[in-house]
Order: sequence, then C-alpha cells, then structure tokens
Amino acid sequence: MNNIKVCLTPSLFPIYSDRTSVVVVVDVLRATSAICTALELGVESIIPVSTIEDALDYKDNDEYIIAAERNGKIVRGFDLGNSPTEYSNHSLEGKKMVLTTTNGTKAINIAKQDHLVVTGSFLNLKALTSFLVEMDKGIIILCAGWKNDYCLEDTLFAGALTEQLINNEKFYYDNDSTASSLMLYQKAKDNLFDFLKDSQHRKRLAHLGIENDVRYCLELNKSEVIPILKDNILISHS
Amino acid sequence: MNNIKVCLTPSLFPIYSDRTSVVVVVDVLRATSAICTALELGVESIIPVSTIEDALDYKDNDEYIIAAERNGKIVRGFDLGNSPTEYSNHSLEGKKMVLTTTNGTKAINIAKQDHLVVTGSFLNLKALTSFLVEMDKGIIILCAGWKNDYCLEDTLFAGALTEQLINNEKFYYDNDSTASSLMLYQKAKDNLFDFLKDSQHRKRLAHLGIENDVRYCLELNKSEVIPILKDNILISHS
Repeated sequence: MNNIKVCLTPSLFPIYSDRTSVVVVVDVLRATSAICTALELGVESIIPVSTIEDALDYKDNDEYIIAAERNGKIVRGFDLGNSPTEYSNHSLEGKKMVLTTTNGTKAINIAKQDHLVVTGSFLNLKALTSFLVEMDKGIIILCAGWKNDYCLEDTLFAGALTEQLINNEKFYYDNDSTASSLMLYQKAKDNLFDFLKDSQHRKRLAHLGIENDVRYCLELNKSEVIPILKDNILISHS
Repeated sequence: MNNIKVCLTPSLFPIYSDRTSVVVVVDVLRATSAICTALELGVESIIPVSTIEDALDYKDNDEYIIAAERNGKIVRGFDLGNSPTEYSNHSLEGKKMVLTTTNGTKAINIAKQDHLVVTGSFLNLKALTSFLVEMDKGIIILCAGWKNDYCLEDTLFAGALTEQLINNEKFYYDNDSTASSLMLYQKAKDNLFDFLKDSQHRKRLAHLGIENDVRYCLELNKSEVIPILKDNILISHS
C-alpha cells in the first residue's frame, strides 16, 4: 500500500521529502490550472522558472512565449500571466512557454530535486488519479500555498485527490494533514465556489476582478492532460 | 478589531510574528495541558527549556523539580515527563519546575523573543478567552504540532479558541488557517475523543498506553489558570 501525504506548505517540504514518492504540485488559483490549460491548448512544453530574472533570459528568444505573474497580476513587460481563461485568447499551439508565478513554479522547483513531479488541479483531477494509480507509488501532495503559508484552496484540492485515491486499494493515509484536507474537502465539495468565498486568496483575486478565473479553476475533470516534469520542462504525459 | 491568526506549525512562525500580538502556545497533547495542571496543583513557577542539556543544568539543585519528555516518554534519569494525570501523584505545591518537551517548550521559546506568551489548552479554554478579551490585542495561536509539522489536536484547539473569541466583537479573523481550524473544530466538537482517534499523535500515545491522559486533556474548562511567561518563567496570571 502507498501512503498519501499532504504537505500543507512548501516550508514543510523538507519534512516530507523521501526521494521515492511522486510529488503532485498544487496551485489551484492559478498556476497549476494554467499549466494544465496551456498544455490542453497545445503548448508543446513549459519551463517553470522561480524568478523574473530567469524568465527574462528567454525574452529576446522568439521561440518562447513568456508568462509571468506576481501577486495575482501580469508582471509589467510580459504578455501573459497565469490566467488560464486568458490563455485561450492567444494562439499557443505548438509553442514553448516559460512560466514564473508567485507560488506554483517555486513549489515545482523545490520538489524536482529528488522527486518525479506532476501538477494537479481540479481541471485534471480524474485523469491525474488514473495516472497515479498506474504509477503505484507513494504520493506527496505539495500545496503551493501563498508565500510559503497555508491556503485553503490547495488544501481542498489535496482532499479531493485523496478522496479519489483511497477509492483504490493501493492507497492509504495516516497523517493528520491528509485527514484534515479530506474532511475540509468533504465539507466543501457540494459548492466549492461558495465555500471559498471568504478565503484570503479569493479576496485577493476578487480585487483583481477575475472571478471568472476562479469559477473556471474549480471546474472538475475538463482535461485529460497530465503535466509531468521531464528534464526540468513540463510536458503533457502520453 | 483584533485579528486572530492561527499559525499551524512553529516552522511558519516567522510569517506570523508581528511583535504586537499576544501569542497563545498550544500543545494539547500534552505540554500545555501539563503546564496548566502543574500550576493548578500549586507549582509556583515553570522554566520552559528547549533541550535536555538545559534541563540537566538544574539537576543537582534541590530547589527544582525537573520534567522532561521526548517522543511521548519520560526521559531516562528524570522523575517526571509531561503527563498531567501523573502530576497529581506528586507533591508539587510551592515547587519550582523545569520542563522540556518534544514540541511545546520549543514553541514557547520561539515565540517569547518578540511577544507576550501565554499557553492554552482545553482545560483552561474559557478562562483564557476572558483573559484575551481583557487584553484586547491581536492574537497568534501557535500550534506546537509534532516536530515542526502539522497536527490535528492543536488545530482543533485553535478552532475552539477562535470560536470563543469571535463571540466577542473585539475579534475577527481573515486568514485561511483560522477559517480551517474553526471548521474542523465545529465538525469535531461533539466528540473530540472519537474525532481524534485516527490522528497520528493519538496513535503514538495509544502505543504508550496513556489514553487516560488524552481523555483528561480533552476536558473543557477544568481550570481558571492562565499560564503566562514573565522573565522567561511561566507563572499563573493573577
């Protein structure tokens, strides 16, 4: 049996890292929803970088589209941020993307040293579950959180994924963070949007007028894409 | 209005520390329940120390009773651990205690640099609430957790204290960890003991055969004691 461990913030990842589990990085609002969407729209590959500086290295290279978000907004001088609903307004098919976000891409880069990394979102929950069942390994669900602190929406996704996985006899959990995530999700799942309405990050996003993005990111199973990190680049697993 | 912020593990405390809030350190199973009980039994003062080495400095001094716990057990060579039900078998009235525990005393020492520190447990929930209402300041509820990681029982206490405080118009909360703690407590409060039965720490303690301690630590409002740190020593606030 494989253990499902929920790591509630990147700050705690050193406690969880075990060099063998698959790490599912989660940044529901919005990085990992954007990654799934970009690959769904035909983006060939996504290079996740932690800093604006690293993203700027690609700026004069026509091969790359650069998406950069900080504090919920597109960084000045870049064309795209991490709004998945915005991505469909651009012609992205076959393109290579470079992405840096406040929380999500950093979490990917923390996890990749010692682990196979995939990214999760409500959009690809079911497909991801099937992939993880097939992998048959321990799982660390790494919530990107907000600036190293806890956030509710990633925890809810961790609970949703746990609920899916424990339907399969290959998986169990024994730690308090996984139990808490599952309980919170079970309370929230009938109406995720309303449940999250008081969350800190939702309030941040409401300020920015992107409630549409929130509704989109909370839709389940719209995509079969499994974003997987290979040689430091996210591609769609096939 | 004063903000109630729940810090889910000591690892996250640097994000929460603001130099003005009162910090309520929580280690329900069992350090802060033991501290409350010791003061209730007439212990004059408790010096919380982080390491066994620091505790040993007091070993040859008859003025002090030393209590030392690691991984749920009394440390070899010491008379007492952190079992509150055990304390009543000793004559503690008027004594000075030195205490070191796996999680709780470390959390106290992390918080004391820049904050007024009190300790909380279900045993003194109501009395603590009255004290905090009177103080009328921002509050950080610092969950000691388990070896810097999240644990459920401290989170539940954080939810219980939040529920009490928001009955008073002086307090509000706006962060996700406080919201989550409150939701978990509201799900658990009708039967804390059963709710916690699958928690990691409960399983650790069950191994040690101290279910009695757990039942005791989950009793509400048995004590009027407010343990408060003054000059690095815990005393009963009067």
